[in-house]
Amino acid sequence: MSATDTTATRRPPIVGELCAEFAGTMILILFGVGVVAQVVTSADGSLGDHDSISWAWGLGVTLGVYVAARLSGAHLNPAVTIALAAFTEFEWRKVAPYALAQTAGAFVAALIVRVTYADLIGAVDPGHTIKTQGIFSTLPGNGAADVGIPTAFLDQVVGTAILVFVIFALTSAWNNPPLANLGPVVVGLLVVAIGMAWGANAGYAINPARDLGPRLASLITGYGGALNDQNGNLYFWLPIVAPIVGGLVGGALFKVLIGMHLTPTEPESNQEEVVVSEPRQQ
Amino acid sequence: MSATDTTATRRPPIVGELCAEFAGTMILILFGVGVVAQVVTSADGSLGDHDSISWAWGLGVTLGVYVAARLSGAHLNPAVTIALAAFTEFEWRKVAPYALAQTAGAFVAALIVRVTYADLIGAVDPGHTIKTQGIFSTLPGNGAADVGIPTAFLDQVVGTAILVFVIFALTSAWNNPPLANLGPVVVGLLVVAIGMAWGANAGYAINPARDLGPRLASLITGYGGALNDQNGNLYFWLPIVAPIVGGLVGGALFKVLIGMHLTPTEPESNQEEVVVSEPRQQ
Amino acid sequence: MSATDTTATRRPPIVGELCAEFAGTMILILFGVGVVAQVVTSADGSLGDHDSISWAWGLGVTLGVYVAARLSGAHLNPAVTIALAAFTEFEWRKVAPYALAQTAGAFVAALIVRVTYADLIGAVDPGHTIKTQGIFSTLPGNGAADVGIPTAFLDQVVGTAILVFVIFALTSAWNNPPLANLGPVVVGLLVVAIGMAWGANAGYAINPARDLGPRLASLITGYGGALNDQNGNLYFWLPIVAPIVGGLVGGALFKVLIGMHLTPTEPESNQEEVVVSEPRQQ
Amino acid sequence: MSATDTTATRRPPIVGELCAEFAGTMILILFGVGVVAQVVTSADGSLGDHDSISWAWGLGVTLGVYVAARLSGAHLNPAVTIALAAFTEFEWRKVAPYALAQTAGAFVAALIVRVTYADLIGAVDPGHTIKTQGIFSTLPGNGAADVGIPTAFLDQVVGTAILVFVIFALTSAWNNPPLANLGPVVVGLLVVAIGMAWGANAGYAINPARDLGPRLASLITGYGGALNDQNGNLYFWLPIVAPIVGGLVGGALFKVLIGMHLTPTEPESNQEEVVVSEPRQQ
Repeated sequence: MSATDTTATRRPPIVGELCAEFAGTMILILFGVGVVAQVVTSADGSLGDHDSISWAWGLGVTLGVYVAARLSGAHLNPAVTIALAAFTEFEWRKVAPYALAQTAGAFVAALIVRVTYADLIGAVDPGHTIKTQGIFSTLPGNGAADVGIPTAFLDQVVGTAILVFVIFALTSAWNNPPLANLGPVVVGLLVVAIGMAWGANAGYAINPARDLGPRLASLITGYGGALNDQNGNLYFWLPIVAPIVGGLVGGALFKVLIGMHLTPTEPESNQEEVVVSEPRQQ
Repeated sequence: MSATDTTATRRPPIVGELCAEFAGTMILILFGVGVVAQVVTSADGSLGDHDSISWAWGLGVTLGVYVAARLSGAHLNPAVTIALAAFTEFEWRKVAPYALAQTAGAFVAALIVRVTYADLIGAVDPGHTIKTQGIFSTLPGNGAADVGIPTAFLDQVVGTAILVFVIFALTSAWNNPPLANLGPVVVGLLVVAIGMAWGANAGYAINPARDLGPRLASLITGYGGALNDQNGNLYFWLPIVAPIVGGLVGGALFKVLIGMHLTPTEPESNQEEVVVSEPRQQ
Repeated sequence: MSATDTTATRRPPIVGELCAEFAGTMILILFGVGVVAQVVTSADGSLGDHDSISWAWGLGVTLGVYVAARLSGAHLNPAVTIALAAFTEFEWRKVAPYALAQTAGAFVAALIVRVTYADLIGAVDPGHTIKTQGIFSTLPGNGAADVGIPTAFLDQVVGTAILVFVIFALTSAWNNPPLANLGPVVVGLLVVAIGMAWGANAGYAINPARDLGPRLASLITGYGGALNDQNGNLYFWLPIVAPIVGGLVGGALFKVLIGMHLTPTEPESNQEEVVVSEPRQQ
Repeated sequence: MSATDTTATRRPPIVGELCAEFAGTMILILFGVGVVAQVVTSADGSLGDHDSISWAWGLGVTLGVYVAARLSGAHLNPAVTIALAAFTEFEWRKVAPYALAQTAGAFVAALIVRVTYADLIGAVDPGHTIKTQGIFSTLPGNGAADVGIPTAFLDQVVGTAILVFVIFALTSAWNNPPLANLGPVVVGLLVVAIGMAWGANAGYAINPARDLGPRLASLITGYGGALNDQNGNLYFWLPIVAPIVGGLVGGALFKVLIGMHLTPTEPESNQEEVVVSEPRQQ
């Protein structure tokens, strides 16, 4: 995701890649979970609203991608990692370590928010109920009664399909992506827009690490019901499974609608060119 | 809309162009109709407001343009396609297929929103009345009584004239457009601003495909009155006809006020340089 | 404001420059006056708020600059034109024609808003009183009783000094401006920020053409008191005089604090390099 | 923070660097303190809200960085200056002069806001109490009772650590920063996001100069309690000490998680490449 001509002299080892995925996802979640904490704990939305939630999540993506892109390609999301493994040359054997590093970064970031916002959370929800559980992890309909599991599942498939479809469009070199290394800004705007248009049915997790890491952080710090939804049904699995399915759907649709029509500029396979997918080679 | 030096080895066939117009408009409408669904169905604007509507529509344009620009030039709007045919070398014989692909993309995207948001729409408007019809298609005065058909028509002419005038300014190579392939971001900001300043009289359709596709999707899924306005007058034709007129007005004004004063850099006709208008040649 | 290597073969004649200033200011005011009309006439801010006013004014500047920059340098503001004449090689003899073209563009744009929004304005303010006069021109304290003429004057000097100071910083080639022809985006963000931080005392005219043109348009279309403030004092002169003073203050401060410390890259006078100031030479 | 190839012919003297730090921080605070003044003094948030506060602070950073970057590297923040001295080749002997220039710029800017907004502040808070003290300097919990000194301290460490961590990521040449001299835009977006996600516990000073300069300006213009928090405890030291600690934490974490894994492109020490840290050399 860069136009610089830096000539790396050796391939970054896997430890650098995993540090980058850890750090990039940590930055993303420090903003993402942080903004929800700020909005939920402030009186009458005096310190933000859903617009600021959408913006800070998206800007968190932009900043997390800049942190990690050079070393790891900045997936920051197991659904993206799996889609890249399925449709590009990203190696399957790296999928599990990447997903673990992403989830760990999200977990640590959520703990930092949990501790720093402990006073304010305690003031508005001393029992640590579902009222503030939404700071950390998602719920069907953001906790409203009108949305059930099937709709939340569909929503997460659709939302993540949009995410991966557009990321592929923005990072396939043959599809004319943004230049001047400004792709991370546009990817962030993509997540801003998803928050504004696809956040009503299931809180736009669209990222298993984003949901599971903070969910576990809240579970071990007083939120006993963190694995369930507002109706007491086991829910933690949904924002893991549905985004993975959605990412594969989005990647496949991109290939059919755009990728297979792109004219190669060199005799290479098209998806090698997905710039976010690969650590920079020597 | 790119500064890359990719050398395409053959012209993308028309099927790729139409897939791109379909996919790009689908992405645009997934965000555009999606954000209105989110705002209209949330209690007291807790998940957005008119600001988020303006932003998500505009960002949807940015993202849709990045999806389609390489293959088709990313018109995503029959009023733009017709203006390009009238004022540039874009071929008239492609206008109908492009408009059809755009409308189909908008139709499919609106169906996806309709299904995914079915629970939430049913909760706030079980009868599928004009109260939530505005999620899909536009109304004079956004449903208020104060605005009639003539004002709505004038408004759509003005709004689309502004759209096409500025698009021509942003994509004529001799007029110094944004570089680094960031034109799509600025085109998106243009639509953000139109939503904020020109959305009151007729909901800023400014795009026949954006309005007709989702209108048909709602018509076949329970919105019996989808072809009419709040007073029962047939209305679906207005956001088709007026934007086409406005696009031609805007293109002509650009030629008179800016285009004819631009100094050519090579002995070519000026409008050949409208970068959005042409699929990349071999 | 461009990094393109276009080689203009002849200098654009003054008529092209004036058309560009007319068109660019017209686009600016179509958004600026348009957004205030939308917000003021909508019920309970349902179609926008002060945030959307700030954004649409700023984005209007961005878009107006892209329209005009190639032909005229895109001043769009007599206070900028005068500051450029005072501190750069922009010719004094062009100041009056530029200011006239800018004011004419603002006047025509405000008339278009006036006509298109006539229904909605009539519904909320049938007498065309000071209640909706603020759509077109500025008032001390935006019409509140707490702010008097001296504060409004000081505010307009400060606001325009900030505007011109930062514009000089963003367009002096030796001060490392934004590249890839994205300067117009940053100039727009500057005006967004001025609207958010310097809009309370006098409505941030910071531009004589922006204020006088629409003021005259409203005066001849039913707003009899358009030349006065809410206390009946003659006011139209203030948003003309104070911005001109402020622009000179800002330009002088830039020279003292930044300009005179910049290291020349070639044996040229520093201010020749102010990229917005000059139409592109052959 | 520039990709231009300008070849400076001599090193800018320290006076130019200090003028730039003064001017850049002044621009930052004219927007930052200005926007809080506008929001706090307007009725019912009619001229802005916390979203506009976040945006204008962040855009103020972007604009201040563009003002100063060429001459001084645009630290605009003693916590950044100290972190750069600790982790890059920025010279320790320049730290005190830079910090003084930054604080002086913030002080002068706050005085300008204080004078220009005197009418409006007097109208809403004639006694100049803690009600409007927050226009100028920060308070634990923004004045709420729920947040104490320890949480505010932790919050400022975390917030400034995030700031410096991401600034290092965005300005280390080996980490692929934004190009086309658009780094200042992304740094501004970073501060927008911090305001949205890390503004609840202590008002996101994250900058000793930003807090102390305006605090002194308010102290000498009628705010007798400006050095204390809402409980009467001495507080002015906290937004000085905690950001300095946080900046060092953030810089160290960047080195561990990202910096030490970056592949050198030339046989130079990595941190020499932090582009914001150094005035441009001859």
